[in-house]
Amino acid sequence: MDGQTPAGSFSLGTMFRPGLPDPAPRFAGLPKYNFVYGHNDPDQVPAEALAESAARVLSQNGHLLGMYNLGQAPLGHDRLRAFVARKLAQRSGIACTVDDVLITSGSLQAMDLVNNLFVAPGDTVIVEAFTYGGAITKLQKLGARIVPAPLDAGGLDMEALAAILGRLKAEGVTPKFIYTIPTVQNPTGSVLSLERRHRLIALSRDHGVPIFEDECYADLVWSGERPPALYALAPDRVIHIGSFSKSLAPALRLGYIVAAWDVLGRILATKSDAGSSALAQMVVADYVETRFDDHVEDLRAGLHAKLDVLIEALGEEFGTSAELSVPEGGIFLWLKLPDHVDVRTFAKAALDQGLAFNPGPEWACDPESARSHMRLCFALPSPQHIREGIAELARICFEHTGVPERGANRSRV
Amino acid sequence: MDGQTPAGSFSLGTMFRPGLPDPAPRFAGLPKYNFVYGHNDPDQVPAEALAESAARVLSQNGHLLGMYNLGQAPLGHDRLRAFVARKLAQRSGIACTVDDVLITSGSLQAMDLVNNLFVAPGDTVIVEAFTYGGAITKLQKLGARIVPAPLDAGGLDMEALAAILGRLKAEGVTPKFIYTIPTVQNPTGSVLSLERRHRLIALSRDHGVPIFEDECYADLVWSGERPPALYALAPDRVIHIGSFSKSLAPALRLGYIVAAWDVLGRILATKSDAGSSALAQMVVADYVETRFDDHVEDLRAGLHAKLDVLIEALGEEFGTSAELSVPEGGIFLWLKLPDHVDVRTFAKAALDQGLAFNPGPEWACDPESARSHMRLCFALPSPQHIREGIAELARICFEHTGVPERGANRSRV
Repeated sequence: MDGQTPAGSFSLGTMFRPGLPDPAPRFAGLPKYNFVYGHNDPDQVPAEALAESAARVLSQNGHLLGMYNLGQAPLGHDRLRAFVARKLAQRSGIACTVDDVLITSGSLQAMDLVNNLFVAPGDTVIVEAFTYGGAITKLQKLGARIVPAPLDAGGLDMEALAAILGRLKAEGVTPKFIYTIPTVQNPTGSVLSLERRHRLIALSRDHGVPIFEDECYADLVWSGERPPALYALAPDRVIHIGSFSKSLAPALRLGYIVAAWDVLGRILATKSDAGSSALAQMVVADYVETRFDDHVEDLRAGLHAKLDVLIEALGEEFGTSAELSVPEGGIFLWLKLPDHVDVRTFAKAALDQGLAFNPGPEWACDPESARSHMRLCFALPSPQHIREGIAELARICFEHTGVPERGANRSRV
Repeated sequence: MDGQTPAGSFSLGTMFRPGLPDPAPRFAGLPKYNFVYGHNDPDQVPAEALAESAARVLSQNGHLLGMYNLGQAPLGHDRLRAFVARKLAQRSGIACTVDDVLITSGSLQAMDLVNNLFVAPGDTVIVEAFTYGGAITKLQKLGARIVPAPLDAGGLDMEALAAILGRLKAEGVTPKFIYTIPTVQNPTGSVLSLERRHRLIALSRDHGVPIFEDECYADLVWSGERPPALYALAPDRVIHIGSFSKSLAPALRLGYIVAAWDVLGRILATKSDAGSSALAQMVVADYVETRFDDHVEDLRAGLHAKLDVLIEALGEEFGTSAELSVPEGGIFLWLKLPDHVDVRTFAKAALDQGLAFNPGPEWACDPESARSHMRLCFALPSPQHIREGIAELARICFEHTGVPERGANRSRV
């Protein structure tokens, strides 16, 4: 009887707090040509080996799931934290122990936890001018004043950053941190040189500004070689985050924060989720201990091959109309169309036709500055879908903007 | 060189935002006699069957982990949502579809998401006078004004609730919701009768106040019979949450919210974690489809046997000094010592001696009202540890308060 109250007689929505974001749209399925959202290559998920690991850890230690955190520290599963510490020592030059590692539910939770530690409404943060769109929206939601720092082909421009810090100092403002993705920058794909890293640390020291280092993509540098992490160079002034989303699989939802206890102890105090899925932590710990290096090498080769397909397709379809920032690793490519093209004018039309890309403005502190840019993720689509998708993109873009007038081989007009 | 800055020369802590909670203590291991924190019985985790499910789903669909949310809706894994809908129809009388189910990282995230949807600082919420301690701290953190509603042996006292709602109405205050745990109330263990459920819905309707129904423990009613969920009686005015933490294993971190799309769509818009661990969702979906009913029946029997051990041990050690609220299901028992006993006077001493219990004041809107109460979780400790632990508890309690002067069989003085 109570369930039969006529619809509309009472709406829970009238009781919602003010200031909520607009409702999410209903899920409409993934677009056919999907160049967004940081998916990985499903064909490169080591499903059989993960199945073996899962069967092994559950048979041996499944009973521990009966306890929150497996009865271990709230920092996360001991065995996975130990692997993260070893991996970071080996690959990123970081000297840390398991006590410096907090496992998170992906690097998104890591970002939320770190942002929430520092940022109160009105606080200033420095962010790379082009950066992960989610980082911008998260900081905006906290009421941060976001000051963009210019990038060039080598990453953060240190002269420009020094000038910004000087200007802020003159205003009496000390930024809460500099958020940077130094190793495979999102979206430009650059890797910051060791020299610039030292310069960045020096600026951080001179101005008393912490560094928030995001190394989501660092295991996917094509060459396999990368400079030491900023955290390796100055552990007292850097908070480091990373993830298994790009090196293994995003739906596992496993990332980590590396920081000293005076930081992690505070973060734990603000964390209200009773830990990340311990099943995922157990399975991944078992898998990565023996197979991570080989897996990452195979994954890199596969991703690089897809990037080559993408670059070739862009050359064929867009010719000289698209300036590519060819990435030094990772899963996305950043490109620029001629100045008069605003990619927002056809993003919706493309989506309606089953093709999704990240409009540059969503990946930029100053949206207008990236109106002619777009980010294309290439890990998920097959080589055939990459080729077909880029042909579609060129067709739709031309329809709306007149660009590209011609590909490498043929004219559209 | 940069890494060798003398310790203390720069502290990231100086940049933290104001208003953070105190740092978390370092993890010191679980206490020997552990009557806290809602752990389950490790011996009752179906580890081998979960291993089979994990091997199966990863071999068949492990590649889907390469996509966020397995390429499915942000509401969570289709197969697990379908099971939740079927389970709720069968056990709780709820008629809902997969579109009304959002999978969360445990019911803690569910609580955070629902609280955040309604509560702005200064908002009033009605909460059962004795309730889950985490619910109180979460609401306090949001700046809510918490109005306690009295309980009796049958759960929420409807006359008292009507009076509270009337008084608030006279003040011009409409509470944002009534938060209730109707089926195996935490901590008192009662199950609200169908008659009271109808009365509660009527009060909700008369006063235009939503109901936030928490059914964490509802699958663990000893009798296997329970009245329909409040959501079943009034889906337009109830938000329902539940969990697999108590019916399967807490370290899986899987819970759910059941609500109409106008609620879930808003919640999704505020959710920033890209979904809960899909590996856990896949494994649990495969397991529960065929084994949930049998598992829960076995689990209930095992838990009830442990409760019997606990009740016997309390009788032996505390005699008539402890008034027990014998629970109708679940994993904890609520008890009261004589009025002059303040359990806070020996909680720390007990912990130092390896024994942990939940002091009543942490499970009460008005801490003083529960100074003589404590909550004892009995799922984790073995029968032997339950007996030894309760003997220890009586010894420590007597040392600090002179109670219990005698157990059933012997005097302490």
